[in-house]
Amino acid sequence: MERKILLTDCPDETGLIARVTGICSKYKLNIIKNTEFVANQQQRFFMRTVLEGDFCSGFLQEIREALPKEASIRLITTSRKKLVVMVTKEMHCIGDLLLKHYAQTMNFEISAVIGNYDNLRELTEKFGIPFHTVSHENLTREEHCREIMKVIDGYSPDYIVLAKYMRILTPEFINAYPNRIINIHHSFLPAFIGAKPYEQAYNRGVKIIGATAHFVTEHLDEGPIIDQDVIKVDHNFTASDMAEAGRDIERMVLDHALNYVLDDKVFIYGNKTVVFRN
Amino acid sequence: MERKILLTDCPDETGLIARVTGICSKYKLNIIKNTEFVANQQQRFFMRTVLEGDFCSGFLQEIREALPKEASIRLITTSRKKLVVMVTKEMHCIGDLLLKHYAQTMNFEISAVIGNYDNLRELTEKFGIPFHTVSHENLTREEHCREIMKVIDGYSPDYIVLAKYMRILTPEFINAYPNRIINIHHSFLPAFIGAKPYEQAYNRGVKIIGATAHFVTEHLDEGPIIDQDVIKVDHNFTASDMAEAGRDIERMVLDHALNYVLDDKVFIYGNKTVVFRN
Amino acid sequence: MERKILLTDCPDETGLIARVTGICSKYKLNIIKNTEFVANQQQRFFMRTVLEGDFCSGFLQEIREALPKEASIRLITTSRKKLVVMVTKEMHCIGDLLLKHYAQTMNFEISAVIGNYDNLRELTEKFGIPFHTVSHENLTREEHCREIMKVIDGYSPDYIVLAKYMRILTPEFINAYPNRIINIHHSFLPAFIGAKPYEQAYNRGVKIIGATAHFVTEHLDEGPIIDQDVIKVDHNFTASDMAEAGRDIERMVLDHALNYVLDDKVFIYGNKTVVFRN
Amino acid sequence: MERKILLTDCPDETGLIARVTGICSKYKLNIIKNTEFVANQQQRFFMRTVLEGDFCSGFLQEIREALPKEASIRLITTSRKKLVVMVTKEMHCIGDLLLKHYAQTMNFEISAVIGNYDNLRELTEKFGIPFHTVSHENLTREEHCREIMKVIDGYSPDYIVLAKYMRILTPEFINAYPNRIINIHHSFLPAFIGAKPYEQAYNRGVKIIGATAHFVTEHLDEGPIIDQDVIKVDHNFTASDMAEAGRDIERMVLDHALNYVLDDKVFIYGNKTVVFRN
Repeated sequence: MERKILLTDCPDETGLIARVTGICSKYKLNIIKNTEFVANQQQRFFMRTVLEGDFCSGFLQEIREALPKEASIRLITTSRKKLVVMVTKEMHCIGDLLLKHYAQTMNFEISAVIGNYDNLRELTEKFGIPFHTVSHENLTREEHCREIMKVIDGYSPDYIVLAKYMRILTPEFINAYPNRIINIHHSFLPAFIGAKPYEQAYNRGVKIIGATAHFVTEHLDEGPIIDQDVIKVDHNFTASDMAEAGRDIERMVLDHALNYVLDDKVFIYGNKTVVFRN
Repeated sequence: MERKILLTDCPDETGLIARVTGICSKYKLNIIKNTEFVANQQQRFFMRTVLEGDFCSGFLQEIREALPKEASIRLITTSRKKLVVMVTKEMHCIGDLLLKHYAQTMNFEISAVIGNYDNLRELTEKFGIPFHTVSHENLTREEHCREIMKVIDGYSPDYIVLAKYMRILTPEFINAYPNRIINIHHSFLPAFIGAKPYEQAYNRGVKIIGATAHFVTEHLDEGPIIDQDVIKVDHNFTASDMAEAGRDIERMVLDHALNYVLDDKVFIYGNKTVVFRN
Repeated sequence: MERKILLTDCPDETGLIARVTGICSKYKLNIIKNTEFVANQQQRFFMRTVLEGDFCSGFLQEIREALPKEASIRLITTSRKKLVVMVTKEMHCIGDLLLKHYAQTMNFEISAVIGNYDNLRELTEKFGIPFHTVSHENLTREEHCREIMKVIDGYSPDYIVLAKYMRILTPEFINAYPNRIINIHHSFLPAFIGAKPYEQAYNRGVKIIGATAHFVTEHLDEGPIIDQDVIKVDHNFTASDMAEAGRDIERMVLDHALNYVLDDKVFIYGNKTVVFRN
Repeated sequence: MERKILLTDCPDETGLIARVTGICSKYKLNIIKNTEFVANQQQRFFMRTVLEGDFCSGFLQEIREALPKEASIRLITTSRKKLVVMVTKEMHCIGDLLLKHYAQTMNFEISAVIGNYDNLRELTEKFGIPFHTVSHENLTREEHCREIMKVIDGYSPDYIVLAKYMRILTPEFINAYPNRIINIHHSFLPAFIGAKPYEQAYNRGVKIIGATAHFVTEHLDEGPIIDQDVIKVDHNFTASDMAEAGRDIERMVLDHALNYVLDDKVFIYGNKTVVFRN
């Protein structure tokens, strides 16, 4: 008995659920959980089906034949995903990820951490994880990104997590890992795009600050949003108090977003996501 | 073309989704939305299927035959539900319901309001809705409840909403409307069961207060919970400040719970609910 | 025995609290509550002092003499504030305000409602409040605003509340009521400035939507923020579902902001507010 | 120039703020922040005054003489507090505290960790902090608590933090550290007092779960509450899913409560707290 997840993403038409679940039934695969969504405007159908049973090779083939030929279909063996984490200087997000790696309470292991500074090496190595310093100094952005790519590619990670990596990536880098780079942005996007969002928030006098986890695309801070959350602030908060308060919400949002992504609960369409939270 | 909702509640076994959606497909009914849940501990299966198409009489029959014979199956025509609302003296919940009745933004109409005092008559009648005063004075609880039942039964409502009705109902009353009485309780149940929850909360020095919407059963404050929410308080709040702050959360929670119930998104099993929020 | 609120707003220097509270003590005024804040960057001091006792004329004079001469000092008799509410077509915010006027649970009465359409007249008049239709048709923006100002000025309100008034006001209008116009904006500002914020939010694929209450200045959607709040949404929400879900949060945020303003808990400085919530 | 915090806790009477701030002014101490609260029912006055300047010995003496003789007055030099943390087997709270100790972003250092099992030794020692295993096996509760007290007393900590320490403490232990033991309880107290709160929550079918940080008194789960928070759950959550989701809120609430306590923002009166969050 094995457990796998079937992810279906195709143009909508009638009878899709019946066809897929019918074939599951025929192959005596038990449906543990089935979640679906139709994006009406785009006429697109998304379904996540958790299956249990003995999978034979004919099953996936028959699913493919039953669905429109533009369908994207994946049958995923649930297993721990491999991450490479990129950092700059801040500790709260990577610290949290290292603890979770150590506790094995989430669905990932960290293969390596890459920093453009050296200050998080000590913490990372406490947990027995390799830390690579790839300094941006004296390099063009293109050269720097290529150096990082070399390190990443040595680990073949499933996802690359930007845990407060504070430099802009090149299109070449981004296109090398499509839909596989996850960033935590320190504002409630699309408010306060760009640098120093807490200073922007302080100057605007907002009463709430937030954080956003999103996939990285070539358009800075504009990739598909996976999760967001906020906390209340008031006039007592300086920009630096906001930054400190924001740390909690940043690591929480990154944590939730990773949970969804690593459990294969996220579909991307256009510049948006479908997130089957349950 | 009609839209109906098929609600399936039965012992779990393999192939249920395939069977139901297969029959929908056979009858050319388009599935607009399908949500399912299996309560593993109870081995019970729940599914809500929103269908569009031409419904013929054979459809429901075929569904019944395909499912275990203990299954509870309902095919519901979506339509505005009829409510009778019971009140005592507080205005915030009934006021909100009256506005929503008037605005027609929710899925209900209020057939009548029943109060054990007269003070909400004026407000109710502004909206052209009959108000019945059924005083509890000089009556036993049993007599009083029977008087109210007579009024209710004149309207044949789908649901009875206790919008801050502050008296205990008799088992006879409760059993006359099984799974059809919805109460808003002014605490985060199971904390502060019984009378004066805000005073209890003040005395305990809690930092959060809440509200709970639940179905009414014979066990006071212990029926299946539909929705709950909270707000933060602090040492500045007296018991009466808490009560005032609680009003907002009470009407919000009642509003959300009604939305779920009236859209046929709620299943009851044992003393719990399945709420398909989406 | 009377209760008054002393509001102090002046350049910061040492000894301000001692001076003010010392004079209160000398005049045998009991301090019920004292809240202060120093905006360090601006070196500005704000204090709200709730006093009880017999107020004689010398008191305020002595306070003035004890503080820097640029100080803005107000001694306010707590009383119900008078509002004129402006609306367009949406009912949820004005409905809520009308109920609160009727229930007398908040610190205001509504003197009149002004709409550029007629559809909210019936609801307003149920509560015995005059409704003025001032259509914008066939008028320039300047002419239309002047017509509204004439109606407003007939009531001498303390504040003007834009309860989903959907047209832009002229600088002349705004400058006629400085720091006295409160707007509820249907987004989490500064995200989604301008028209159709829910459509913008839908298109961006955000996972949270919000509302913002702010004072109105000449710069559209950029006045000092009084309060903000949010609710979670997901891929199931269309733009119109978001708008509907947003209604709850809009009226809550407006309600909270009004509470703060009408209880004289809000100071404005630069483009920001100090809100003494307690 | 030094910064100190003056904490005043005394029976309420008129003129207290004026007296205290007047003496501060006389001694040329600048008030950076002043927060006060009167518990009307108990007629008790609480004030926290952050002062900057040169403190001479006469100052505190003069404050004492100016206040009722039952007053509790403390003048605190702000400095990093020393904690001993007690654990059983769960890692999320202690992991978070260890990271914060390492990052030095909060106002504490961890002197030692004491566990009744050995499994958190490895993690603790990664951070260079001594770990003491004090097994409860073959000991009475009294003997076990005394063993722990011996270890604690070797460190003279300011506070003892129960970071998921799952055993009941003796009155002797509790009375040895009055108002200095902080516990994180895995439910929204007073709901689900006692063992297995997540199982209780699951069985009750609640839609929200929470956590509570409180001072420990002889009455189990009934000490003064410092902070509470909640997250939403639904029918999809098993008891163990709730426990997992609860971890996030547990460490957040403990973190916030510690922040308040270590910044000397918390007063205890009766079985309640005053928490000056700002």
